[in-house]
Amino acid sequence: MSVLNAQARATIESGRLAHLVTLNADGSPQTSIVWVGFESADGETIVSGHMDDRLKLRNVRRDPRLVLSMETGVTNDHGLGEYLVVQGTGEVVEGDAAGLLQRLARVYLGPDAVFPPGENHQPGWILRITPTKISGIGPWS
Amino acid sequence: MSVLNAQARATIESGRLAHLVTLNADGSPQTSIVWVGFESADGETIVSGHMDDRLKLRNVRRDPRLVLSMETGVTNDHGLGEYLVVQGTGEVVEGDAAGLLQRLARVYLGPDAVFPPGENHQPGWILRITPTKISGIGPWS
Repeated sequence: MSVLNAQARATIESGRLAHLVTLNADGSPQTSIVWVGFESADGETIVSGHMDDRLKLRNVRRDPRLVLSMETGVTNDHGLGEYLVVQGTGEVVEGDAAGLLQRLARVYLGPDAVFPPGENHQPGWILRITPTKISGIGPWS
Repeated sequence: MSVLNAQARATIESGRLAHLVTLNADGSPQTSIVWVGFESADGETIVSGHMDDRLKLRNVRRDPRLVLSMETGVTNDHGLGEYLVVQGTGEVVEGDAAGLLQRLARVYLGPDAVFPPGENHQPGWILRITPTKISGIGPWS
């Protein structure tokens, strides 16, 4: 069954920044901002690419529960900014993070963007996110 | 000792949306977006106003650990969007939420904004946030 409706999918693919929350070892929340997209055009798995094995990835390996939130840039009739919240679970896999980041860079930075800079990148890690629930303010609340 | 530098203070007062993360009873993270400002011009306490006693406030009463994250709208030399992350602890107090929201509405919506709509508001609740650490990408990392 689909968790994301068409408008939520469009937001995730819009090139807007995603605030990613993971859980530290002591249970406290940790936030950083990532680029996101879909793993495939017909699936619901959301992916982000990571060249370095940072705190957020170690957190997900220990406790897979996470949240993404994204502003849509749309203001509703009450003057409030719409936003999407995706609750889900994450899985960290080794993979072609540079390839994913290059694909996302075309969305986030522009069609001619080259990212990450340089050549001969290490494989890096992909964070695969399975959405379980959406909320927020927008055409999904 | 000051946790926030001048640029972090300016971001918090900029009228940009704050992604607020609290912890649910089962330890999972919960995100919603709030308006924020400072309680006073010379203090570090960040405040948000709430007319209704929602999940995030119940969460803070149980576990005060929280995180705020805000995009600054500035893009750095690598093409990456700058953002501020504030870790801290929260305290929920009864108070003049409508008055605070009206003050913040002038920043978030415009100088002539009236918010919340209507009259004779209940007191509501103020979430008081004490910053303990900042991170992110920007003139504070």
